[in-house]
Amino acid sequence: MLSAIDHVGVAVENIDAALGLYRDQLGMGLVHRETVTEQGVDAALLDVGDSHVELLAPLAPDTAVGKFLARRGAGLHHVAYRVESVQDMLDACAAAGLRLIDSQPRVGIRGSRVAFLHPASTGGVLTEIVQPAEEH
Amino acid sequence: MLSAIDHVGVAVENIDAALGLYRDQLGMGLVHRETVTEQGVDAALLDVGDSHVELLAPLAPDTAVGKFLARRGAGLHHVAYRVESVQDMLDACAAAGLRLIDSQPRVGIRGSRVAFLHPASTGGVLTEIVQPAEEH
Repeated sequence: MLSAIDHVGVAVENIDAALGLYRDQLGMGLVHRETVTEQGVDAALLDVGDSHVELLAPLAPDTAVGKFLARRGAGLHHVAYRVESVQDMLDACAAAGLRLIDSQPRVGIRGSRVAFLHPASTGGVLTEIVQPAEEH
Repeated sequence: MLSAIDHVGVAVENIDAALGLYRDQLGMGLVHRETVTEQGVDAALLDVGDSHVELLAPLAPDTAVGKFLARRGAGLHHVAYRVESVQDMLDACAAAGLRLIDSQPRVGIRGSRVAFLHPASTGGVLTEIVQPAEEH
């Protein structure tokens, strides 16, 4: 059901500074930038093989990522697994008794359909499931 | 140079309890278990596509993962990128001015050759580079 690690999400103070590390020093290709106002983040996607690193910088301190940075500092924020159907996987997770943040899929970065599972039922790991848009 | 997300490392209190989530609820195949005494962990590898989730439970409270759990609780511990040559990548990282935890590769899980970069120079993300053993 989970076909790949789609990406790891990394909370950063500043996208451009983080690109200095991921693009310039580690050599990952930058493939996408987007401001996702609804989620309160500036985001960038970098390629690593068939997966991505998703850099997330908060648009304001009172956003989810802003609060994460204040509480824990910059670092790993979430892991996202790729699925063929986010709705089917969400149904399976609900049936398995997992607590969901999103009971319905919503639009994520680059036109994907995504949902988050609650870390309370995934061992403290904020876990996302992602159905990429068809062109990706 | 980084060809894939090899795995995400997840700190857990107990491997068997975590397998209830990753293997039984999320449906990942368990492919390996190992006690890595030198690193003070019980570890399990689960397949997700061509990548893995690596569960890490501490052998004692004064190990690296034990201290991580005490400080931050269970959750994402590190991300590991796959490389063809861990030595070449380590040389490139040193040349780029990144701070290294391991200046020389060491043996990791399942006979891999690994090295860790220091989170102080990777934006708070404990970052591992992995050269899998040839049979994997």
